[in-house]
Amino acid sequence: MNKLQKIDAYWRAANYLSIGQIYLLDNPLLTEPLKPEHVKPRLLGHWGTTPGLNFCFAHLNRIIAERDQDMIYIAGPGHGGPAAVAHAWLEGSYTERYPAISQDAEGMRRLFRQFSFPGGIPSHVAPETPGSIHEGGELGYALAHAYGAAFDNPALVVACVIGDGEAETGPLAASWHSNKFLDRERDGVVLPILHLNGYKIANPTVLARIPEEELVKLMEGYGHRPHIVSGDDPETVHQIMAQTLETVFDQITEYKAGRADRLPMIILRTPKGWTGPKEVDGVQVEGTWRAHQVPLSGMRDNPEHLVMLEEWMRSYRPEELFDEHGRPVAEVLATVPAGTRRMSASPHANGGELLRPLVLPDFRAYAVETKSPAAHSSEPTRVLGAFLRDVIAANPDSFRLMGPDETASNRLQAVFEATDRAWNAQVLESDEHLGAGGRVMEVLSEHLCQGWLEGYLLTGRHGLFNCYEAFIHIIDAMFNQHAKWLESSRKIPWRPPVASLNYLLSSHVWRQDHNGFSHQDPGFLDVVMNKKAEVVRVYLPPDANTLLSTADHCLRSRDYVNVIVAGKQPILDVFTMDEAIAHCTRGLGIMPWAGTDAGVEPDVVLACAGDVPTLETLAAAALLREHLPELKVRVVNVVDLMRLQPPTEHPHGMSDAEFDTLFTPDKPVIFNFHGYPWLIHRLTYRRTGHANIHVRGYKEEGTTTTPFDMAMLNDIDRFHLVIDVIDRVPGLAERAAYLRQHMVDSRLAARAHTRVFGEDPAEIRDWTWPQ
Amino acid sequence: MNKLQKIDAYWRAANYLSIGQIYLLDNPLLTEPLKPEHVKPRLLGHWGTTPGLNFCFAHLNRIIAERDQDMIYIAGPGHGGPAAVAHAWLEGSYTERYPAISQDAEGMRRLFRQFSFPGGIPSHVAPETPGSIHEGGELGYALAHAYGAAFDNPALVVACVIGDGEAETGPLAASWHSNKFLDRERDGVVLPILHLNGYKIANPTVLARIPEEELVKLMEGYGHRPHIVSGDDPETVHQIMAQTLETVFDQITEYKAGRADRLPMIILRTPKGWTGPKEVDGVQVEGTWRAHQVPLSGMRDNPEHLVMLEEWMRSYRPEELFDEHGRPVAEVLATVPAGTRRMSASPHANGGELLRPLVLPDFRAYAVETKSPAAHSSEPTRVLGAFLRDVIAANPDSFRLMGPDETASNRLQAVFEATDRAWNAQVLESDEHLGAGGRVMEVLSEHLCQGWLEGYLLTGRHGLFNCYEAFIHIIDAMFNQHAKWLESSRKIPWRPPVASLNYLLSSHVWRQDHNGFSHQDPGFLDVVMNKKAEVVRVYLPPDANTLLSTADHCLRSRDYVNVIVAGKQPILDVFTMDEAIAHCTRGLGIMPWAGTDAGVEPDVVLACAGDVPTLETLAAAALLREHLPELKVRVVNVVDLMRLQPPTEHPHGMSDAEFDTLFTPDKPVIFNFHGYPWLIHRLTYRRTGHANIHVRGYKEEGTTTTPFDMAMLNDIDRFHLVIDVIDRVPGLAERAAYLRQHMVDSRLAARAHTRVFGEDPAEIRDWTWPQ
Repeated sequence: MNKLQKIDAYWRAANYLSIGQIYLLDNPLLTEPLKPEHVKPRLLGHWGTTPGLNFCFAHLNRIIAERDQDMIYIAGPGHGGPAAVAHAWLEGSYTERYPAISQDAEGMRRLFRQFSFPGGIPSHVAPETPGSIHEGGELGYALAHAYGAAFDNPALVVACVIGDGEAETGPLAASWHSNKFLDRERDGVVLPILHLNGYKIANPTVLARIPEEELVKLMEGYGHRPHIVSGDDPETVHQIMAQTLETVFDQITEYKAGRADRLPMIILRTPKGWTGPKEVDGVQVEGTWRAHQVPLSGMRDNPEHLVMLEEWMRSYRPEELFDEHGRPVAEVLATVPAGTRRMSASPHANGGELLRPLVLPDFRAYAVETKSPAAHSSEPTRVLGAFLRDVIAANPDSFRLMGPDETASNRLQAVFEATDRAWNAQVLESDEHLGAGGRVMEVLSEHLCQGWLEGYLLTGRHGLFNCYEAFIHIIDAMFNQHAKWLESSRKIPWRPPVASLNYLLSSHVWRQDHNGFSHQDPGFLDVVMNKKAEVVRVYLPPDANTLLSTADHCLRSRDYVNVIVAGKQPILDVFTMDEAIAHCTRGLGIMPWAGTDAGVEPDVVLACAGDVPTLETLAAAALLREHLPELKVRVVNVVDLMRLQPPTEHPHGMSDAEFDTLFTPDKPVIFNFHGYPWLIHRLTYRRTGHANIHVRGYKEEGTTTTPFDMAMLNDIDRFHLVIDVIDRVPGLAERAAYLRQHMVDSRLAARAHTRVFGEDPAEIRDWTWPQ
Repeated sequence: MNKLQKIDAYWRAANYLSIGQIYLLDNPLLTEPLKPEHVKPRLLGHWGTTPGLNFCFAHLNRIIAERDQDMIYIAGPGHGGPAAVAHAWLEGSYTERYPAISQDAEGMRRLFRQFSFPGGIPSHVAPETPGSIHEGGELGYALAHAYGAAFDNPALVVACVIGDGEAETGPLAASWHSNKFLDRERDGVVLPILHLNGYKIANPTVLARIPEEELVKLMEGYGHRPHIVSGDDPETVHQIMAQTLETVFDQITEYKAGRADRLPMIILRTPKGWTGPKEVDGVQVEGTWRAHQVPLSGMRDNPEHLVMLEEWMRSYRPEELFDEHGRPVAEVLATVPAGTRRMSASPHANGGELLRPLVLPDFRAYAVETKSPAAHSSEPTRVLGAFLRDVIAANPDSFRLMGPDETASNRLQAVFEATDRAWNAQVLESDEHLGAGGRVMEVLSEHLCQGWLEGYLLTGRHGLFNCYEAFIHIIDAMFNQHAKWLESSRKIPWRPPVASLNYLLSSHVWRQDHNGFSHQDPGFLDVVMNKKAEVVRVYLPPDANTLLSTADHCLRSRDYVNVIVAGKQPILDVFTMDEAIAHCTRGLGIMPWAGTDAGVEPDVVLACAGDVPTLETLAAAALLREHLPELKVRVVNVVDLMRLQPPTEHPHGMSDAEFDTLFTPDKPVIFNFHGYPWLIHRLTYRRTGHANIHVRGYKEEGTTTTPFDMAMLNDIDRFHLVIDVIDRVPGLAERAAYLRQHMVDSRLAARAHTRVFGEDPAEIRDWTWPQ
C-alpha cells in the first residue's frame, strides 16, 4: 500500500465505524449476514457531514506524522459525532479514556451500541468525546473557538472544519476576521476548512451556490489564501487533498517565518453523504440534503433497505481494515500519530491537563482607603483595572481580557499600561495601545469575545470578558452552551477542571441613563440562573474593595461561570479592605453602622444588592435615622446572590435559620435590587418570611435621562424606599404621614430640577453618609 | 448656487442642527456670542458618525427628487440620532409630528434643548424619530432590517448606512448574503453604504484597516458591485458622491430591468467627526476615535473650548442657512423631496400606516376530528402547516414565514404546496421548493430570520418565525430590542399599531431527546417575561386544535410579541374545535372528563401547561382514577400563561377570586410545566395558595435518550406526578403506600426497558386516555 492507499484505508475504517455507530446494535464486523435485530430501533445520527469530517482527519494525520506538527481538530458540524468518536477509537484514545470500549470486536460492538442510545453517548461531538473542545449542537462558534485555542499556542495548528450551513450564521461570518487579531510570534495558526457539501437540513447553502469566483474573492477578502479541493471520486480527491495540504503547510511555514502575510484556507467540495447510498427508493440521496441524517431507514421492516445497508457497509471492505479480533490492521493505523500528537489525545483539547494557576498579585494592595464608610467615592472598575494590569503583567502568556471595544469605556484602561490591544492590521501614528501580541482583545462582536474566550479557557488558559450589561444578552445562547459544556464535563473524570468563564458587566442598567432605553436591561442574570446551580455564580459587589475581593476569588475558581456586575461611575466606598474580604467571604451581611437596630430585633430590614441600589438604600437609611430615629432599621447588603437560596438549591445557599436571623421571619423587608425584582422572589420564595419581602428593582422603565431619574422611574430611589418603609411597617403610616408627604415632594422636586437643569440636584449627586 | 452647492448648504444645515442638539440649551442661531449658560450641563450625543450620516442623506435627497425614487433611510449608527432628527426638522416632518417644535428659531431652540435631555428625546434614532424603523442602540441589525423593509416593496430603495464598527458584528456580517434571498420582480433594492470613518469607540475598525484590494474583494465576494467614495475635502467628496450615486442608481435601474445581476454598494471613506474640530488641547480629534462622542467638552469652565465651539458652529455659516426667523432658506430646502417622498415622512417607516389586516381562512376548517378526548394523536405543527399554507396563498405579498432551515423539520411543509423558499442563487435539478419570490425565508441564521422579520413588520406587513425552541436564545437580545421598540412606540400617537412578532417554537425541549443536551432549553420564556406585560404574550396550546385557535388569534393581533410553543411529534388530540376555541378564549380551564372532582372541591389539583406536560398529567390522572378512585382530582390546563398573573401585573391576569376557584386556596396543586419551574412560581407567588403549588418542569437534566426518559430525568413523568400527589395530599401517604411503590417500580422498569431496547415501552409510547 502506498501512503494514499493507507490514508484511504483509514478513511474507509472511520466511515465504516461511523455507520456502525449510527445503525448497529450488534454484528459489528458483519461476520454474519445483517439481520433486522442487529439494527437500532431508533436511528439518530447524522451521516451527511461525516465522510467529509473523516476525510479531513485522515489527511491531517499524515501531515502531523510527517511534519511532527502539533495540531487539534475542531469539527464545526458537531452533529457528525460518529466521526470524532471513530477517530478516537482508531487512535486508541477512546479505549484509554473508556477501557470497556476496547479496541477489538467486543469493544466495537459496545462502541456502536452506546452511540445515541439511552444511557450511552450523545450524537454530537460533546465533552464526552476525547479530543473535543467544541460541541457544535448550536452552530456558529467553531471558528471563534479555533482562534481561542490558537492564541498563545505558537506551535499549534488548529484545523477547523466549517460546515457550509454553519457558515451562514452571524457568529461564524464575523469569525473570519479573527485573523486580524492573531500574532505571528506568540500565537498558533488556524486552518479553516470550509466544507461545502452543499446542503444544510433541507436546503442548499449560500456559499455552495454562489459563483466560485465570488467565493474565492470572499475568502481573499477575509484575508486568506484559498485552495480548492473538489470532486467526488475518492482516488482523485485523495490526491488533490494530499497535494493541497503540502502547499498549505508550506504556506503556514512561510507565514511563521515571516515570509508571507496571509494564511491559507481550504475549500473542500465533496458530496453530502459521500460514499453513502447513491439512490434510495428511486430518489437521489448522495449529494443531496436527503443524506443529512440517515440515508437509509426502516431496515427492521424493509428487507431491501437492510440489504442496502449491508452492501453499503461492506463497500468499505471491513475485512481489509480489521483483523479477525476486530482490531484495526497496521495499514489502517499507519498514518496515526503517536501519543499526544494524536488529535484525539491532545492535551490542548483537554485544557485542564495544561492549566496552571494564575500568578495573582495581592489584591489588597489595590484597595481604596476607606476611613469612614460611604464618605468618599471611587470608580470600582477603574480600581479593578490596576489589579488586572498586574494580572496581565504577571501572566504574559495565559491571561486575556476580552471586550467589545468597551475596555476603556468600562474604565479598565490601566491595563494599557501593561499591554496593548491585539491587532495585526494597519497601524497609524495616531493609534494608541495597538499591537501584535496585545493581551486585550477588542472587537465589536460580543460573539467573538465570547467564542475566543471559550476556546482559550477550554485549552487551559484564563480570562475575563468585560461588557456593557445590556448587550451581554447577545451571547445568551453561547453562555447557555458553555454552561452546559461545564455541566457535562464536570461529570467526566478524565476532564480536569478548567478556569471559570468570568464576566464583568459594567456600564450597567442604572448608569445607562445617558444612552437610553436600548442600553438598559439587567436580565442576563435571569438567564444565568436557569443553568445548574453547581456551575453558576453571580456577584454584585457594592464598592471598589468588594469588587477587588470578588475578582480575585473568581480568577482563582474553576469550572464555573462567574458573573460580576460592577459600575464604572463613582460610587461610595463602603468597606475597608478587611471588611470587604469578610463581607465577600460571608457573601452577605449586616452593615451595623448604617442601621439603628444595634443588638435588637429590627422593625424593618432594608436589604440591597448592587452598587446603585446599595447607595440608595444607605441614603434611605440615613433619612430614616434622621426623621424616625426611634425606628429600628437593619441594613443588609448582599454580594453573592446565591446565598439567598436554600442550601438544597445551591451550594452557597443559606440555611433557613441563618436567613431568618438576618432577615427576620416576620418583619417587612424592603429589598432594593439591581435587576428585575422577581429574581429575588425566585431565590427566596421558600423562606419563612417571604410574604414580607418587598422587592424593588428594574421594571423596564427607562429612557435618556439622569441617574437619579432612572432610579425614580423604577422606584428604587431613596425617597421611595422611605415611603415603602412607612407603608409596610405596621403602625407607621399615621405617625410618619408628614415624612411620607415630604418624600413624595422630594421626588417631585428632584424630577423638576432634572427637567429644568438637565442634571440631578447636587445634594443628591454628591450625597455621602452623614459624618 | 449650483446643485452641489445646494446639497452642501443642506449638509451644513444638518451638521449645524446636529451640533446644536448635542451642545446647546439656548441661543440656537448664535444671534449673540455663546455663553456658558447656553451650553448643556451634560453632553450626551455622538458627533463622530453624524456628518457622514448627514452627507449621505443630503445626497440621496437629490436622487429622490430627480428620479422620483421611493426611498427610506436606515442609519445603522443609530447613536447618530441628532442627524436623523435634524433631517426630519429640515424636511418639516418633525414639526408635523411635534407641532411645538416649529420650523423657526423658537422651534430650533426647543429642538436643541430636548435632545438627550431629561423629559426630552433619546440620543439614538428611536421610535420617537420620524422616518425611523431602526434604533441602532445595539449594533448589528441595520442591514437585516433593510432587507426586511425591501421585501415585497418592488419600487422601494432602502438606503442603509452601515458603520464600520457595526460591520464587525456577527449579525451584520451574515446580513451581506441577504441579497441571495431578494427577488428582482417582487422585492425592492437595498443600497448598503459602508461608512468607513475608521473607528469604533476607542479602536480602529477591521474593515477600515485591511488593504483596499481585500475590502473590494470582500464586497464582490458578497455579490455586490462596490463603489468607493473617499476623501476629506468636502467639495471634492461632494462631486465624487454625486457622480457615484448617478452610477449606482443607473446600475439599480439595470438590475431592475434584468440587464445586470449584481447590485451596487458604496464604500464611503470620510474622517470620523468630519468638519469638526481638527485638534483640541493639542491632540488630533477629527479623523480619530476621539471624535466618537463630543469632540469638545467642559465649555462651562473652559472659555477656550467655548470659543472653539462657537467657531465650529459658525464655520457652517448659519446666517446663510437660516433666515432671521430661524427658518431654513430656500437653497437649503432645494433638494428636499415633497410629501411622502421625504425619507423622514415615508409611510414605509411608519408601517402601521400601511398595514392591511391579513386575509385569514377559517381556522376551524383545519381542525382534527376529536370524537373522544385523548384517544388519537396528531402532529400539531403539521396541522398548522395546512392553515399557514392557505394564509400564504391568501396574502401573496404581505406575509412571510421565516425559519433557520427548520420549516420542514418543524413539519410545516404543507406551506410548500403554496409557495417556495425564497432563493435567487443557483438552482439544481434535484432542488425542491426553491425559487425567487418564495414566501418562506430559510437561512441558517436566527439573526437574519429575526432581523428580516422585524424590518418586514415595521414596514407594515405580517409574518411568523418558526424555530427550534433551544436555539431561539440566539436572538434573545434582538427580541429584547424589538420588545423595547414596541414598548416605546405604543406611547407615540402618530405610530399606528403594527402586526405582532409571532414566534412558533417547535422541536421543543421535551422532544429533543434524540438531539441531546445542547438542544434542550426552554428558557426563552423567561427572557420574554422580563419585558413589559403590555407587549408580551406566551401560549402553550396542548394539542392541534388549540394550536390552530392560538395561531389565528396571534396573526390578528397588533403590537405584541406572541410566543407559541407547540410540538411537532404526535400528541393526543384533547379538544374538539369548539372546545379548543372556548378553552383558548378563557386561556385556561378545568378538563372535567379527566378529573374526579365533579361538582365538588377537589383533594388535589393537577395543573399543566405545554403539550408533553399535559400528556403526562392526563396519564397521571388516569392512574389516580384507576388506583385511587375516591380521590377527588381536578385537572386544569393552562394555554395562556399570562392568565396566571394578577390583573395588576398583566392585562390577561386573573382575579384572586377566579384563581382560588380554579386552583383552590388551600389544596395541593401539582403543576406540570413545559419550562423552568420557577417561572410558574414567579407568576403565582402572590396567590393565596402559593405555598401549596408544587411545580415540575425542566430542571436542566438532559442527554441523548428517549422522550419518556427525558420526562423521567426531570420528574415531569406520569409516575412521578402520582408520587407527588401521594406525598402532598394529607393523609394519603399510608393509604397509598403500595401505589407509591408501584410508581417507583414503574419508573425503574421504564428506564430499564429504554436502556435495553433503545426506545420507550410501547404501553407508554402509545398510551391513550382509557375509553
